[in-house]
Amino acid sequence: MSTAPQTGTVEPFRFEDGALLILDQRALPAEERWIRCETVEQVAECIRTLAVRGAPAIGIAAAYALALAEDRDAAAELLRSTRPTAVNLAWALERTRDADDPLEAARRLHQDQRDADRRLAELGAELFGERTRALTHCNTGALATGGIGTACGVLRVAWEQGRLAEVWVDETRPLLQGARLTAWELRQAGIPHRVVADSAAGSLMAQGRVDRVIVGADRIAANGDVANKVGTYPLAVLADRHGVPFYVAAPVSTIDPATPDGASIPIEERDPAEIVAAGDAFNPAFDVTPAELVTAIVTEAGVLEPPYGESIAKALAS
Amino acid sequence: MSTAPQTGTVEPFRFEDGALLILDQRALPAEERWIRCETVEQVAECIRTLAVRGAPAIGIAAAYALALAEDRDAAAELLRSTRPTAVNLAWALERTRDADDPLEAARRLHQDQRDADRRLAELGAELFGERTRALTHCNTGALATGGIGTACGVLRVAWEQGRLAEVWVDETRPLLQGARLTAWELRQAGIPHRVVADSAAGSLMAQGRVDRVIVGADRIAANGDVANKVGTYPLAVLADRHGVPFYVAAPVSTIDPATPDGASIPIEERDPAEIVAAGDAFNPAFDVTPAELVTAIVTEAGVLEPPYGESIAKALAS
Repeated sequence: MSTAPQTGTVEPFRFEDGALLILDQRALPAEERWIRCETVEQVAECIRTLAVRGAPAIGIAAAYALALAEDRDAAAELLRSTRPTAVNLAWALERTRDADDPLEAARRLHQDQRDADRRLAELGAELFGERTRALTHCNTGALATGGIGTACGVLRVAWEQGRLAEVWVDETRPLLQGARLTAWELRQAGIPHRVVADSAAGSLMAQGRVDRVIVGADRIAANGDVANKVGTYPLAVLADRHGVPFYVAAPVSTIDPATPDGASIPIEERDPAEIVAAGDAFNPAFDVTPAELVTAIVTEAGVLEPPYGESIAKALAS
Repeated sequence: MSTAPQTGTVEPFRFEDGALLILDQRALPAEERWIRCETVEQVAECIRTLAVRGAPAIGIAAAYALALAEDRDAAAELLRSTRPTAVNLAWALERTRDADDPLEAARRLHQDQRDADRRLAELGAELFGERTRALTHCNTGALATGGIGTACGVLRVAWEQGRLAEVWVDETRPLLQGARLTAWELRQAGIPHRVVADSAAGSLMAQGRVDRVIVGADRIAANGDVANKVGTYPLAVLADRHGVPFYVAAPVSTIDPATPDGASIPIEERDPAEIVAAGDAFNPAFDVTPAELVTAIVTEAGVLEPPYGESIAKALAS
């Protein structure tokens, strides 16, 4: 298990001098602005407003927030309520709430995430052939996990191993995490990439210009159904139609054994103002991709394949 | 054939005092700014920069521009080069270039479009059941045709006939013609609607919240393959998966008998800056939906059904 420093990656937060410093992802890439959080409420507000986002990263940020809390039970409740879809948040709070030293527990969680990301990325990169043209959605890089990332971590290792030719980056409406964050991370890593409108992925696949689709996950149900950033499901349907492998890369903590299937996953609806300045809009943050459209789920515990009921149960038990 | 004034619709241009006045659609809905064009070059620039857009509308604008030309052959060549995908442009120029009175010919073309839109809309509305929840992409309303619109004209008549419950409006990246123009037209017509990110259409269909998809077309090949705004093809694939009828509404002038199939349609690539301020992007303006995914093509000459090779040939001959 590698614990070497991850060179060339950015960090979404750091704990120092009794405060959690959060890199404000809403201002990226134009500006690197850090928010100093000295209270649980400040961290909760950062999670709610997406200053920090990405399922694994919000779990770790919440764990650090417990180290700022006087009443850890109340703090955990507040933090858990900020984002309803991601399950790592609840899992991270569960793991750190009763620790003797909550800061030490949060630091261990953060390091575990780094280790898991690296292992996951190495396993995922093996699924790439030579000169793969990959397409990804949203941001699943260092900013989203605190490690080297999930799907973007796979892309990074695949690039280091010479397996990657180019990345198509879905801009990812409405908040443009792909165009703003993923493109920024890939540029820093020197990985060739082009941003496309989310709706252009279909014709790219129809033209045979995509070899792999790889995305992250906010929650994976026990049967392998995957909740992820809205727009993931159409990619899976298109990949299926064009025979393009569709991979989900996520740590085991993203799998919720208590969620039997996708229909049981709460889908967060966000402010219509993220889409239109005035007038009516409907703004679900996530969608659900049925397990039948997922070629494999890459975790730090191994590459899970159908039937997911079995492979997921095995990964959870390991 | 109805030639009654179309109340409540906006007009994308008008010819007066020897000039073509073009409503600048790039500034809508924030501002109603009119551009006064006294030369062919000015009209060509308006078409190229999307001040006026929509396949039928750019054809009529180009026809009016010929009335401003000293050398009509050179003017036609300049105008034809502005947008490579739409075929109505070439068709409209062909019809008016050699007219004795080009202004009279352009006015006739404009009136013919109004009549065609109305007939098309009435035929299309019959395909709607009761309280239909329709989803549309881009803008295909009055702004796009100079009449009451194609797909949006169908929605308008369906609403008048009490067949329409609500419209889901794809925002339509990168230039947001849905969020800016279609939502604006529907609001003026009092039709209930909600704007969604293009990538949310998939989960809406998966949840059974869409009864019909209806879109326009920039070019229809002889075999029924349809080029339309990028993002149309994914909608057709998703509609097919979910058993939702997928209709294309377009005047017969959109059908190009000289284009055998979708692979022969040139797809305009636009400036990457429409997607990202800096860095690499790939920005195709259109995609191609294969005929097999199209439930019916609604034209003013009738509702065409598969096999399209036959039904299209019959419509062109009529």
